Formats: sequence, C-alpha cells, structure tokens
Amino acid sequence: MQRISSKDNSLIKHIKRLKEKKYRDEYGEFIIEGLKVINEAIQEKADIRHIVVCDGCDNSEMIESHLKYEMARLDFIYVPQNIFKMISDVENPQGVLAVIGKIKNDNNQEKDEIEEAEHTSNINLNEDIILALDDIQDPGNLGTILRTADSVGLNQILVSKATADAYNPKVVRSTMGAIFRVNVIECENLKETLKELQSKDYKVMTTSLKAKKSIYEVDYKKKIIIIGNEANGVSKEILNIADEKVIIPMLGKTESLNASVATGVILYEYVRQKINYKKLL
Amino acid sequence: MQRISSKDNSLIKHIKRLKEKKYRDEYGEFIIEGLKVINEAIQEKADIRHIVVCDGCDNSEMIESHLKYEMARLDFIYVPQNIFKMISDVENPQGVLAVIGKIKNDNNQEKDEIEEAEHTSNINLNEDIILALDDIQDPGNLGTILRTADSVGLNQILVSKATADAYNPKVVRSTMGAIFRVNVIECENLKETLKELQSKDYKVMTTSLKAKKSIYEVDYKKKIIIIGNEANGVSKEILNIADEKVIIPMLGKTESLNASVATGVILYEYVRQKINYKKLL
Repeated sequence: MQRISSKDNSLIKHIKRLKEKKYRDEYGEFIIEGLKVINEAIQEKADIRHIVVCDGCDNSEMIESHLKYEMARLDFIYVPQNIFKMISDVENPQGVLAVIGKIKNDNNQEKDEIEEAEHTSNINLNEDIILALDDIQDPGNLGTILRTADSVGLNQILVSKATADAYNPKVVRSTMGAIFRVNVIECENLKETLKELQSKDYKVMTTSLKAKKSIYEVDYKKKIIIIGNEANGVSKEILNIADEKVIIPMLGKTESLNASVATGVILYEYVRQKINYKKLL
Repeated sequence: MQRISSKDNSLIKHIKRLKEKKYRDEYGEFIIEGLKVINEAIQEKADIRHIVVCDGCDNSEMIESHLKYEMARLDFIYVPQNIFKMISDVENPQGVLAVIGKIKNDNNQEKDEIEEAEHTSNINLNEDIILALDDIQDPGNLGTILRTADSVGLNQILVSKATADAYNPKVVRSTMGAIFRVNVIECENLKETLKELQSKDYKVMTTSLKAKKSIYEVDYKKKIIIIGNEANGVSKEILNIADEKVIIPMLGKTESLNASVATGVILYEYVRQKINYKKLL
C-alpha cells in the first residue's frame, strides 16, 4: 500500500498517460474503472498491476473494504481526489480504478522481431471461425462486437490498424468483461494477414449488398468473417481478395444494419449451424 | 419564408420546448437535425412542419440551396446563430433542423377517448410478429432496435411507458431514417396490451436463461417478441404471462447480449424461417 499526493509522481504520470492509445500500446496496459469491472477482472484472473483508490471520495471506504478482501496481495495506491480526477476518464468517478496488462502482445508490437511474412504468428489457427474488423470506428460498436464474439466462444478477434482502440475506456466498459477473455490482435496490414490465413486454408467471407448467397446458405467452417466500417462497409482491397460474398437478407426498406447487430446476426447463424451439426452426430 | 430574430417569438419557444418529451407528446412533434436525415424525411414523405436554417452559420448557404430545390413549398424559417444554438441539440450543429409530425397518435394519447379494454386499437393485427420493448433505457439501443425492426419489415413497435422516448434526438439519429417508417406505439400498460393481444391469438415470447427451447426451435407465427431492460431483463409481471420462454444459446462465458444485438439475432432467425418457408411453397 502506498499513498501518493504529488501529481508529479512518476507512477501517476505513467497511469495518466494510459489515456492515450500511444502509451497503452507502448506499456501494454489499460485502465478500467469501477467496482463491477474490477471484480470481473479478478474473476477472469486478469493481470491487475495497480489499484488506485480515491482517498476522501464519497464511497472510497466501501470500495476499499470490498476490494481488500479479494485482493490482499495487490498494489493499492491511495491518491487525493484531485489526482484521482486527473487520471480518471469518467465524469462521476466511482473512486476506484485499476491498471491492467493486456492479454498478449499483439501482432503490431512484435513486428520488428518476426519475419515479414509471419503476420499470423499470434493467431490461433484451430478455430472454426475468425472475426476480423475492417476499420470499425465507433467505440460502442467495437465493445458490443467484442462482447458478442465472446458470447459465441471466440477467444480472439483481428482488427485493422484504423479500427478504434479496444483498450479505450469506452470500449472496455461496453465489452462487459469480454476484454479480459478475448485476445484483440491488431494487424499492421489486415489484407496481408488475411492472405496468409488464406494460405492456411481459411476462406475470407464478406457481406455485400450484391451477393446472391445469403448468410443462411453458407457453412461456417474455417471462415474469416469480415465486418466493415460503419459508413463505408468493407474496404475495396479486402473485397478484392474475398473468397465468398454473402448478403444478410432484409425484408424492409433499410439497406444496412448497425455493425454490431450485423455481427450478431452472422455469428448466431454460425451458432445455429454448430448446434444443428452437433445434433446430427 | 420568414426571418425570426427574437428568442421570445412564440414559434421559437414552441420548437425549443420539443427538447422535452412532455411537449413532444403534447404537440405530437419532434426535431431532426442535419441535411442527411432531413433528406430521408423528404424521401419518406414525413410530415415536415418547419425547416429552421441558421442564418450566418458556416454552411447555411450550401444547405439552403440544397434544400430549396426539393422543398420549395415548405415553411422555411431563418434564425440567427444564437437562436439556432438554443434550439439545436447537437454540439456542432450543421445549421439546419426540421420539426416533424409523429406518424400517428399513440395509444397513450388517445387513452381518454377509448374504452378501457381497447389497448390494441392502434395496433396492426395482421403482422406475423410484433416486437415489444419492456423498459429499454439506452437511447442508442432503442434507435438501433428501431433500425433493425425496420430492416425486417416491421412497421410498428410497442414500447412500455418506461422505455426511452423514441423521439429523443439521440434515438432519432441512430434509427437512420427508420423513425419515419416504424410506428412507435407507447403502451400505458404493456402487460394489459399484451393480454389483449393474447386474446387475439398472439403468443407472448420472452427470452430466459433457464429456458430449454432455443430461439431456433420455435416458429415465429403470431408471436410477440419481448425485449427486456438492459440491466434487469424482462419484468416479472410480463414473464408471468409469457406463453413461451426461449434461450439464445451461447457458446462462450458471457451470459447476456447487448439488447439490440439480441433483438437482431431473434429477428433474423424469424427472417431465416420466413425465407425457408417461402421456398417450400
């Protein structure tokens, strides 16, 4: 346990920097706020590096006693309210936050150490399906997509470089704990990664309004499902290498779905097929 | 065309009040902002009552010329920037907004004029399925649900009294135009409305973590699909009258989905069955 009261303290400075993606990447850490998500982190055995408690915030005592029990061995840091507000990202902070180590180094960070061609070294190739996000912009969508992927048992997700940062506090909140279970693999060049996965027997599947096959008419074995940008859809260079284009058939007037809803609709068609397949065995 | 420069002008006061649900209900009107959604309103032949243009805002000339062509007969109101900012709901207004009349009076507003028992007089009873929202709180979720319902061809949606207001500007934005096509029917007492629909051969279906049947094992004829509150799920009193409880089978560790994703997953299972059924004919 330590008490820090100077905003120039190096640890405080370090934590404050985690508001920026640049430093989250560099340090391999991110911040979570509030008792609920910290409890999830404990349950998931996340790599909790520091717990920062606001000294003198309204509910700090409650929080302290609640957490102490489960985390006797953790590094507790007490800071005054003004410093807590400086490092917190929410408007009405609950008075407790934690610094978490990311699940693994991602593709991006290891790029100097691995061969040019090995974009897939961090990817688990034993999965039925792989979800890949091509420039998803909205943090709420990204968080909801992570939560949905987690709900169908995916333990990894590929994201293009221009996709919103999964460790952004808003995303973390909307994943409802999935961030501790799903490995987010940032791809320096998503197209190259996909091409390599194609050489390893995966097929790239995108949605397209012009496709003739529906999402209900394909099987989901060894498929990479691409979810495109909210405004522009899947990028041209990825459409060009797609093995299969499918359409989500719509009965109304709208031509498009929200990106996280579209992800859910496709992933749960995979679930339906998987359950039916198991029944046949 | 008129130019208004006083913030005490009665029309300005009227429009400003539309920021509150109370007045949106009373006047049967709501506000939309920006060129894109106004164009959608025109396309959908929405009841556009006023167009307010910010005089002197950066892009007002562009907007004016763009709109004039299509809306020569509409009531254009020019206001100075300070008044526009007063009635606008967005941080960086585009400089144009419109006042729209709601599709129909809802259940709630007519309640004095109709018999106690007739909660369903505004509801189209020729639909395969009816979607009912039981206290959805998040405006983003509500908007996305409306958009999804529209995409599968639903032209109405029932909402409980405690559901977020569908005409809240944030909801309107996230419906992507669906607000002009889907009739939002606010139910004074959702349970009573559902009971009446049950007497008219509809079955009430809710999701439940304890259900044995999956969403893939039921058919979607004459079903009312209930989507529950984000934190608490479907309320007890509605669970009590449910004819059928189903589960969205999850393969991962999470136990719940985001409400709008869950809606999408269920509605698109309905779509899948409907398409398959048509093929059999």
